Amino acid sequence: MGASGNQSELDVIFNPNVVAVIGASNQRGKWGYMLLEHIIQGGFKGAIYPINPKGGEIQGLKAYPNIKDVPGAVDLAVIGIPAPLVQQAVEDCAAKGVKGLIIVTAGYGETGPEGRKLEEQLGKTVREHNMKLVGPNCVGIVSTAVNLNASSLPFVKGNIGFITQSGNLSEDVRLLLQQRGWGFSRLVSMGNQTGIRFHEYLEYFKDDPETKVVLLHIEEVKDGRKFMEAVREVVKKKPIVVLKVGQTKAGARAVMSHTGSLAGNFQVYQAAFKQLGIVTCSDVADLVDFGGTMAQLPPLKGKRIVILTDGGGHAALASDALEKCGLEMPVLSAETQQKLRAVLMPQSQTGNPVDFAGAAEYDLWTYTKVTEIILQDKDVDGFLITGALFGLYSQAFGPELKNLELDVTRELCKVVKKYDKPVIMHHLPVGENEPIKILREGGIPVYFKVETAVRCMAALADYGAYLEKIKARAAEKPVEVSRKPKTSQIIDKAKADGRTSLLETEAKEILKEYGIPVGEFRLAKTKQEAVKFAKEVGYPVAAKIVSPQIVHKSDAGGVKLNLKDASEVKKAFDEITRNARAYNKEAQIEGILISPMEKKGIEVIIGMTRDRQFGPVIMFGLGGIFVEVLKDVSFRIVPLTRGDAEEMVKEIKGYPILQGVRGADSGDVEAIVDIILKVSSLVSANEAISELDLNPVFVFKKGASVVDARMILG
Amino acid sequence: MGASGNQSELDVIFNPNVVAVIGASNQRGKWGYMLLEHIIQGGFKGAIYPINPKGGEIQGLKAYPNIKDVPGAVDLAVIGIPAPLVQQAVEDCAAKGVKGLIIVTAGYGETGPEGRKLEEQLGKTVREHNMKLVGPNCVGIVSTAVNLNASSLPFVKGNIGFITQSGNLSEDVRLLLQQRGWGFSRLVSMGNQTGIRFHEYLEYFKDDPETKVVLLHIEEVKDGRKFMEAVREVVKKKPIVVLKVGQTKAGARAVMSHTGSLAGNFQVYQAAFKQLGIVTCSDVADLVDFGGTMAQLPPLKGKRIVILTDGGGHAALASDALEKCGLEMPVLSAETQQKLRAVLMPQSQTGNPVDFAGAAEYDLWTYTKVTEIILQDKDVDGFLITGALFGLYSQAFGPELKNLELDVTRELCKVVKKYDKPVIMHHLPVGENEPIKILREGGIPVYFKVETAVRCMAALADYGAYLEKIKARAAEKPVEVSRKPKTSQIIDKAKADGRTSLLETEAKEILKEYGIPVGEFRLAKTKQEAVKFAKEVGYPVAAKIVSPQIVHKSDAGGVKLNLKDASEVKKAFDEITRNARAYNKEAQIEGILISPMEKKGIEVIIGMTRDRQFGPVIMFGLGGIFVEVLKDVSFRIVPLTRGDAEEMVKEIKGYPILQGVRGADSGDVEAIVDIILKVSSLVSANEAISELDLNPVFVFKKGASVVDARMILG
Repeated sequence: MGASGNQSELDVIFNPNVVAVIGASNQRGKWGYMLLEHIIQGGFKGAIYPINPKGGEIQGLKAYPNIKDVPGAVDLAVIGIPAPLVQQAVEDCAAKGVKGLIIVTAGYGETGPEGRKLEEQLGKTVREHNMKLVGPNCVGIVSTAVNLNASSLPFVKGNIGFITQSGNLSEDVRLLLQQRGWGFSRLVSMGNQTGIRFHEYLEYFKDDPETKVVLLHIEEVKDGRKFMEAVREVVKKKPIVVLKVGQTKAGARAVMSHTGSLAGNFQVYQAAFKQLGIVTCSDVADLVDFGGTMAQLPPLKGKRIVILTDGGGHAALASDALEKCGLEMPVLSAETQQKLRAVLMPQSQTGNPVDFAGAAEYDLWTYTKVTEIILQDKDVDGFLITGALFGLYSQAFGPELKNLELDVTRELCKVVKKYDKPVIMHHLPVGENEPIKILREGGIPVYFKVETAVRCMAALADYGAYLEKIKARAAEKPVEVSRKPKTSQIIDKAKADGRTSLLETEAKEILKEYGIPVGEFRLAKTKQEAVKFAKEVGYPVAAKIVSPQIVHKSDAGGVKLNLKDASEVKKAFDEITRNARAYNKEAQIEGILISPMEKKGIEVIIGMTRDRQFGPVIMFGLGGIFVEVLKDVSFRIVPLTRGDAEEMVKEIKGYPILQGVRGADSGDVEAIVDIILKVSSLVSANEAISELDLNPVFVFKKGASVVDARMILG
Repeated sequence: MGASGNQSELDVIFNPNVVAVIGASNQRGKWGYMLLEHIIQGGFKGAIYPINPKGGEIQGLKAYPNIKDVPGAVDLAVIGIPAPLVQQAVEDCAAKGVKGLIIVTAGYGETGPEGRKLEEQLGKTVREHNMKLVGPNCVGIVSTAVNLNASSLPFVKGNIGFITQSGNLSEDVRLLLQQRGWGFSRLVSMGNQTGIRFHEYLEYFKDDPETKVVLLHIEEVKDGRKFMEAVREVVKKKPIVVLKVGQTKAGARAVMSHTGSLAGNFQVYQAAFKQLGIVTCSDVADLVDFGGTMAQLPPLKGKRIVILTDGGGHAALASDALEKCGLEMPVLSAETQQKLRAVLMPQSQTGNPVDFAGAAEYDLWTYTKVTEIILQDKDVDGFLITGALFGLYSQAFGPELKNLELDVTRELCKVVKKYDKPVIMHHLPVGENEPIKILREGGIPVYFKVETAVRCMAALADYGAYLEKIKARAAEKPVEVSRKPKTSQIIDKAKADGRTSLLETEAKEILKEYGIPVGEFRLAKTKQEAVKFAKEVGYPVAAKIVSPQIVHKSDAGGVKLNLKDASEVKKAFDEITRNARAYNKEAQIEGILISPMEKKGIEVIIGMTRDRQFGPVIMFGLGGIFVEVLKDVSFRIVPLTRGDAEEMVKEIKGYPILQGVRGADSGDVEAIVDIILKVSSLVSANEAISELDLNPVFVFKKGASVVDARMILG
């Protein structure tokens, strides 16, 4: 099917041969009018059948009363009729053997319980007949390869794929692309995601030769795990840029762990994006500009950027923006500076920023000369021209400069083409003009804000760094995932007892079985045992209540630390038992946990919570106030590679503390990474564990030890 | 002089009656051509005299060979001739009695030592003759009140004052203003600030009736104190928005205190802006948009914003942006929602965001009805319309809607005018069209990015909050500044000894004299004295070396803590003395400081450093790793009000620790504020103290105590 070589189930959407428009109309203002009009005007390469009960002729085409009346097969039905009529139309489509549906109609789940019922029925029909559905409640799709504009938007063609959860936003994006001379390879307005979901579109875009970059507007991903799998494959081939909205606090959700309470929806998404090499942005304009830039330019191979400016004002803005984005501005080599001096003027600066200081006004060809010299330098990764004013030179110095401006910009594009390095231009905000058009079409993106140009450069750097990273990590073994007998036993027993959390002893047994260091511990049922165990593990010891009913041990007076001898242990045993009874009469006391006092290390927390979409999420942070007050924590989604675990340890603000500050010992990062990877394995293998806090874990100069552990079942 | 009623020394720049252009030319491409052309084309209301050695006629005006040849007085000379010729021209101006100079010529301090010499000579001449100089190395000035465009820029007239340190940036701003239909009341390209400085321009703008808002582009302020004084007066009358560039690390500067090392140039500027109620922004577009908005709209009286949208996509973006900016989105009252339901459709949302959900497409007048209902609600402070698509309605639904779009936007402006509440619109990025022009001119700023619209709203909220704050603080007494005898003695003695730092005992004596709690301390010269003092202050005690040569006492083994009895004190005395000698043979030992061990409180640091521009800057932070690793500190510039001090304590991220976390005691914020204000007084009165660290200060549930203090003289 279709014009494009890509073979996929979604070809019924993106590469149909025959399209029917159900609800097609001659009446302006109706969706059925607009959709048909756009499909015809777009020059769709296949056959178009208007469907309308009245039959006759619609917008010059023969109309059929029902899709079932159409002669021959129909690949795709575009439906724009009132919600109450849609179900019958879809069933007709099913009867006709139509496999692709686009339903723009609103009035479904987004409107309340009644709409939700309609939507469920629709979903059921679609699944039963193995149909592919876009929508409902959307503005349609665009597929440039077959000239199909089955949307409410004017048709702008290009090489950018865009999947959006908001119809209105697709109009923003369309307008911005058009202004910059760019366009869509494919556009998908997802609507309510009743049928096709993110990961299916992404799988399609992966092998789509028309799409050079994929833009996503995400409110909520369903099937987070599949989304991740799909993204992983796409990003190897082409960049993905995401605008995630809905950054407000996650809704009320009962959580019993620190990790659960800190893993807000937005944090988890951010972790996923980082881990997957998705470039993030924070507004629609950046989404478009990152996309257009990345569709045109190669990723950056390093972070070393040279700035070319005419005067200090823009250079200062550019330097600030570069620093903010983590890019570097190295001083140019003596050799390059010497070459630059030969083409610039005495007052020009050649270090970096390179400052024309009037040289370009004097001779516009200086632009191309300087550019070539800089791109030749092997220690330069990217080149940023700021404060350009093509079109203004001729305005200020006479119209005879007009042709020169065109010649210089054309030549500039030629120079840039010779080198595989991104060149981006910031231009004074003059609006569109001929030289700017030449630059844009010639492979030099032009932006009217310095900061936009710099952020686009940073997006190329981020993507380049990710590609390097996956190359370097290709040899990394994935974390082994295996169920272990004792762990399964413990969990099964707790479940059989109807418990929703494990005892500290149970949690620690599980950690031990997974090779996570927990120190020694013994469960004393009697005072005599307590003394005996204390002697065995070695004084001083800690004594802690073990009771399924007591989760917050300290609150219940159930913890005694630093017990130095037998008499202190006995006294503690009695007191803890008494306190526990007083705290909760019903508490069933399993015994008292005796463990040696750990020497104090750097306190960290390692935790896990299960996100509704993405599954198990691991959290790392420094303990105590760092996690509680500053919320200085990092997240990654399971499964993690060793590299992921290392990154999450190093990205917290308090990381210098693990490197050792004020003469204090450093902490063993490898030991932390090891625990994180083992937790990743543990929670992957045991889905029954819904939340987990290792808090605190003491980290020493060499090694680490889990001091307290909580595991919640769910 | 001049057309405007404002009486000021800068009237020779902004309101001249007679202007001469030195270097005026008939040759396109020369500065002297462009400047004269712009002055003539701008329609300057006074007399214009071209000056050129060749005399004759220039651009239709009689030219004079020298300014001294001009008949009658000249107020302002605009000079655009090569640098080597400028000095003579300026001397001629002086001879002629000209008081205003604008020198656009480059080639001064910015080019190196030779240029610097030229600039110094120029400055001297200007000062000697009491002339007011703009530049050199600038693009000139604009003064709309007298139709004077003495700049290289096209003339765009409006009510926005702009002072910039970059000529190129003024072109960016000019273009952006023009696109939005705004313009300059006065523009100043400062150049090298050889003559007039920021504070003088600000003083002028304060009483300038043409200027509704002042925009600043700052790389570096000279005369920081005068800048602050001027700003304080301006901000009471009109908003100031600043774009500060040069956010990179402060250059190498020898500092001996924590405070000094943390008080980077950018941090100090940010503190000054916050303290002064200057609205900050981070790029040129925001500078313009904040400016245009604030010139038109009243400040917000609160933070309660209502969003109107058509569909969820823009509403989600707007909500995210509002939260990021610290604005609020309260649910509308039942009464208002009821009124809204009466004009909307069943599927529309009325909580907040208010979502048309198609109602506007159905009837465009819904816009004005909804707006009126929302503005009537006394619990709404500001109104944000997102995703508007005026001009697109008629495009989508037929050209017959064109007039309706115009009528509705006109009516919308009328509705908005009735209420003293800011209304800002986000519109799909369609470029300019007639309805948008109506809205903009009718008092509804229109932006093509949701985030821009929200940030503009936040700028109005920030300014409004500042005005409220100064009203509330009007009664606050300024901190008393007084020299005190003992402090002066101590400082004089240290200076006489040639010391650059005070002994801990001296520093604590000074603190004591200023009423800052330091606990008891005695300087023991002998072992016997040490024992005697220890008994007097009460065991356990701390013993610390006191020596002008030993600044880092711990490193020298010069600190012993928790000494419990006489024998421990004696032993400590010997050890400290021995260690100190071993550490530095030359060290002159003044004695051993004996003080009672403070019970441990929350550790904080209070410090002061002197900024080259802004003078004494106070720093506050939590002690230890908070300051060293996380750099979680706040700054304010002396003099501080009590409100400033409270704000700086509360704005650090670790503030919850002072409120008490994990069952720990809270810290006495008032005690901290008290110390901060007393330090402010101390450093104001004693300029010899160049840096100061109180580190740590222990903060208790009630009260606080300085445990260690360092004062540097300079």
